[in-house]
Amino acid sequence: MTATQFHPIIPTSSRLGETKEYYFSTKLRELAALRAAGKDIINLGIGSPDMPPAPEVVAALSQTATRSDIHGYQPYAGTPKLRSAFADWYDRYFGVDLDPETEILPLIGSKEGIMHISMAFLNPGDEVLVPNPGYPTYRSATELAGGVIRDYRLSDATDWLPNLEALEASDLSRVKIMWVNYPHMPTGTAAPEGFFEALVAFARRNEILLCNDNPYAFILTDSRKSLLSVPGAKEVVIELSSLSKAQNMAGWRVGAVAGAKEYLKSIIRFKSNMDSGMFRPVQEAAAVALGLGPEWYDGLNAHYRRRRDIAFRIMDQLNCTYRTDQVGLFVWAKCPAGKDGYAISDDALYNKDVFITPGGIFGDEGNNYVRISLCSTEERLTEALERLAN
Amino acid sequence: MTATQFHPIIPTSSRLGETKEYYFSTKLRELAALRAAGKDIINLGIGSPDMPPAPEVVAALSQTATRSDIHGYQPYAGTPKLRSAFADWYDRYFGVDLDPETEILPLIGSKEGIMHISMAFLNPGDEVLVPNPGYPTYRSATELAGGVIRDYRLSDATDWLPNLEALEASDLSRVKIMWVNYPHMPTGTAAPEGFFEALVAFARRNEILLCNDNPYAFILTDSRKSLLSVPGAKEVVIELSSLSKAQNMAGWRVGAVAGAKEYLKSIIRFKSNMDSGMFRPVQEAAAVALGLGPEWYDGLNAHYRRRRDIAFRIMDQLNCTYRTDQVGLFVWAKCPAGKDGYAISDDALYNKDVFITPGGIFGDEGNNYVRISLCSTEERLTEALERLAN
Repeated sequence: MTATQFHPIIPTSSRLGETKEYYFSTKLRELAALRAAGKDIINLGIGSPDMPPAPEVVAALSQTATRSDIHGYQPYAGTPKLRSAFADWYDRYFGVDLDPETEILPLIGSKEGIMHISMAFLNPGDEVLVPNPGYPTYRSATELAGGVIRDYRLSDATDWLPNLEALEASDLSRVKIMWVNYPHMPTGTAAPEGFFEALVAFARRNEILLCNDNPYAFILTDSRKSLLSVPGAKEVVIELSSLSKAQNMAGWRVGAVAGAKEYLKSIIRFKSNMDSGMFRPVQEAAAVALGLGPEWYDGLNAHYRRRRDIAFRIMDQLNCTYRTDQVGLFVWAKCPAGKDGYAISDDALYNKDVFITPGGIFGDEGNNYVRISLCSTEERLTEALERLAN
Repeated sequence: MTATQFHPIIPTSSRLGETKEYYFSTKLRELAALRAAGKDIINLGIGSPDMPPAPEVVAALSQTATRSDIHGYQPYAGTPKLRSAFADWYDRYFGVDLDPETEILPLIGSKEGIMHISMAFLNPGDEVLVPNPGYPTYRSATELAGGVIRDYRLSDATDWLPNLEALEASDLSRVKIMWVNYPHMPTGTAAPEGFFEALVAFARRNEILLCNDNPYAFILTDSRKSLLSVPGAKEVVIELSSLSKAQNMAGWRVGAVAGAKEYLKSIIRFKSNMDSGMFRPVQEAAAVALGLGPEWYDGLNAHYRRRRDIAFRIMDQLNCTYRTDQVGLFVWAKCPAGKDGYAISDDALYNKDVFITPGGIFGDEGNNYVRISLCSTEERLTEALERLAN
């Protein structure tokens, strides 16, 4: 049968109707095509750490893989060793006490957790509070699970924090989940004093499951915070952690969801019907990564600080303006009057071979912004700066 | 906050209402508890190969992991190298020609593919033909995606094959997907001559997406078959493959879905919003595993043949009767009159410390059957036999 004879007989689900392929999935294909055509594209888009994990992490993978007895299916809830490593890490860095038996569920990356949570808690028509701008996956997972998106709008004028009073003045009776993510991507906003407490009180009053997506907790900040540290939080909070960013393990796909046993049980009811436990050598390596001391994070942040300085200069070159107190793996900046983020991104890609993420892909509140990832070397960032200056 | 003060405020989705935690997820916890209490349980339940992958597969993992540039996010559709390795493997072992660019999508194990396919194609209320007995995940994925299960009943009297004529005499207008799985788990039935052709014709006439789950293609059979080899199949067939069984990589989580570009595009629209590409060292190792020659499979099957002989004797000991022409990783047998599979399983577990899977967990057509996995050594199988004889 040749390709021309083919026509697909079975239509797709209407739940895919509004959901596009993930932006970076299509964008990376375009960049690959440009590279195949001979272009040396500098990709300042995706937040995929370019540095390797700690050597002892890689060694734990290889050592475990040589064992003959570790290649079978692993427990759905992760090995006890990995769960304990997550609990110890929570205790050491966030001051949060978790039962490794019941309050930690390792994930194949925290991204899958967003879908698991949506599928485990949403009924069709349930509303979900989603940040605009914010990580696009909160939005697509909500749609795919049959939920209804309610944007909560963030802006520079309100320091990129939600207006909880205004939200509470609206009808929240159908809201089941609120996604929050501080340190916030893409704006680099850290949670200010008292904000997490206000969030938890808001969620308790309105019986909303507050899901904090927390992959950037360690990057360019020494003030590490878990939403679970707020007294009473466990009744309404679950939190996603990831080894993608601060442990340089994005491709390894390791994360966890933490929270009350009852909530995690619901999530595993969905998850155990869809996948299986993680590859044992990856679990052993992840446990080593979670045991890394503060010096690991300090060393990482020394790199990111130097890179951020160059990223600021790139933003200057683009006549974009930014806050200097941003945290996390990106620099977020406002476009000059008369240009939006898409125009600046297209101009940089097609004329200078530099890919910068347009802020609008995170929601229309980001239309007049661009985002630069710090996951390139100082040399590449400097080269991007030079290209944009010419 | 102590545990006693806690009550979960947010209820779960009603889609979880009918879906239990996956049977083996809870059962493995029970076995772990019995072991913790000092029992030496012989687990003849789950089909998790106990032998390691080929040494060159493990070496590829370790070698790749030492590279510093492979720890970031990987392409959503897998590396070109892994997709080509799957296409070459399909060509070599199944005589099926696939475009590695568009007709292969690597998966984090084929199990997740069952959920991706269900989510990508089912609208609420769409009907799904599910084998009874069959792999429980077809059933739970259908429910979780909002579909309606329609059992097609298999029995020893009809050689464990669906009665397509009887199905076609019923109203199939709402049926969107049919799950098939030959070699069939749990019954060990191989697809007879002409059966795949009849299935494809049935699916084309009724505009049903025919999903063949094919993890057992290599085990205890030399007649390897792909449903995609039937002329015209690509218009209605997608097929799941797995490295879990025949490559001894169950814990690694590698599989693929193969089929027409248009169907795979729909699947990736869901999948790319939920996860990311697989760990690069695992992809490199999987490509090596797919390149293994027939001698690898011959070596594996020599083990499984010897183990199957012991499993037959265990079934004799239990007064269960079976076909000797079974293929795949299990032995399926009928209980003696007056006992069902649950009674035999409980008796073996609680009195002899041997876990045997009750056939009823695969659907009520399996109630009077039990299943023994061949994923234990000859020594352990012999010990189980001896325990049951005493």
